[in-house]
Amino acid sequence: MEPFGTRLRHAMDERGPLCVGIDPHSSLLTAWGLNDDIAGLERFTRTVVEALAGTVAVFKPQSAFFERFGSRGIAVLEKAVEELRAAGALIVMDAKRGDIGSTMAAYAETFLHKDSPLFSDALTVSPYLGYGSLKPAVDLARENGAGLFVLALTSNPEGAEVQHAVREDGRTVGATVLGHLAAENAGAEPLGSFGAVVGATLGDLSSYDLAINGPLLAPGIGAQGATPADLPSVFGAAVRNVVPNVSRGVLRHGPDVTGLRDSATRFADEIRAAVDPR
Amino acid sequence: MEPFGTRLRHAMDERGPLCVGIDPHSSLLTAWGLNDDIAGLERFTRTVVEALAGTVAVFKPQSAFFERFGSRGIAVLEKAVEELRAAGALIVMDAKRGDIGSTMAAYAETFLHKDSPLFSDALTVSPYLGYGSLKPAVDLARENGAGLFVLALTSNPEGAEVQHAVREDGRTVGATVLGHLAAENAGAEPLGSFGAVVGATLGDLSSYDLAINGPLLAPGIGAQGATPADLPSVFGAAVRNVVPNVSRGVLRHGPDVTGLRDSATRFADEIRAAVDPR
Repeated sequence: MEPFGTRLRHAMDERGPLCVGIDPHSSLLTAWGLNDDIAGLERFTRTVVEALAGTVAVFKPQSAFFERFGSRGIAVLEKAVEELRAAGALIVMDAKRGDIGSTMAAYAETFLHKDSPLFSDALTVSPYLGYGSLKPAVDLARENGAGLFVLALTSNPEGAEVQHAVREDGRTVGATVLGHLAAENAGAEPLGSFGAVVGATLGDLSSYDLAINGPLLAPGIGAQGATPADLPSVFGAAVRNVVPNVSRGVLRHGPDVTGLRDSATRFADEIRAAVDPR
Repeated sequence: MEPFGTRLRHAMDERGPLCVGIDPHSSLLTAWGLNDDIAGLERFTRTVVEALAGTVAVFKPQSAFFERFGSRGIAVLEKAVEELRAAGALIVMDAKRGDIGSTMAAYAETFLHKDSPLFSDALTVSPYLGYGSLKPAVDLARENGAGLFVLALTSNPEGAEVQHAVREDGRTVGATVLGHLAAENAGAEPLGSFGAVVGATLGDLSSYDLAINGPLLAPGIGAQGATPADLPSVFGAAVRNVVPNVSRGVLRHGPDVTGLRDSATRFADEIRAAVDPR
């Protein structure tokens, strides 16, 4: 399989640069007229897959909203991942895993091994145990043509407590993560497979070097307040590598299939116009 | 239900201060003569439950080793959690979750809500998104008599990159996490419910204030190199609040039930003698 970065570049060029988050929280199930139970979760997920699988470039299922129903919720997630991938979409599993040694290897096996029922194109991971702790995931991703998105600079205000702390060399924790990723992606064409999570709501990021030659997963568009038009000023020259994520902004139009499809197309068009105004 | 801290204190006083990690990685399944598949996982887990459920104070299942089998692995974990709790043991689910807002609330619901199939007595969580991001989990834990163990100072060398970085007030990220936990546990008797993960292999911790009035989960005893006798010098006056975790050191004696039981008893005795030499 081609590397994740290559596949992502092509998918965003073909389908438009949009990642739709699949976040079936209870308020959304209720708004769709569904019960907050496993049947509601199943119905919600099936509708999203049917409406969007063939048109959206990237999906980001939020693992927590499936895990909360235990093994039966995970079974729903497995089926969705399989169907979305079969329809040519890419999956970024938003699970924010992070551990060391054989445990990190087991998480990698869960989400990045081609024989796993949860095999995804990429996984979000947390570097609290140090970037080096993620090595088993980096290695398995390379082997299977998959990728990672490492939490670097998140959009919530509390994140600064950790991410803006300064190391002996004068760089912040967030900048250090970006530096590791730039090294990981060196020489990759057209785009490396090792991305960062960087909030679209952060405002001015000019003090950070976002030129990591890898994708930048940017939550926060739509309901969280950022708009497609904000992307160039936030991400500067790196804007073409941004994977803008919209969750509620699209999902609130369900369960109407046409409504879901139209809003996804509209966001993809607006993002393309803002990012690549040729 | 009584708060987790109270239940933990009593469990460690009664059964001895030992937490046994349940880490069914493939090499361990092989060493037990089992296949590295769902049947092997089931057999391994059932054996650990049968051998140790009634004698060990605390179990720490490592979620990753169940997740790698997808929804079927999670079903094995659900059954084990239910049986261990029914036998009077406490469960610290080692899942290292960390997210923001409604997603963190969903993780909390998964592991800390009494109606969830994965309801555990406590959950390990990661503060990379800032300690404040964990609030939904703190709140739900309080409501359900459960607890948290927040990653503070981990035993792996790469962890320093994040955990030793310094904030504007001059404190490190790790010390900041400990400070938040001390505030959370203020006034709790006999022990707060909000603990920290602090590696037993870290050597001298005297520059950190470990008096958080909460439990300190300490991996690293046994196969990772630390011994029960090291605990007083590493943890100082906080040693009575340490929950020392042994995984391979016990599990390598399986599948022999007597071997598992004897080694757990031996570790619990050695730890009690080192920690509370009355």
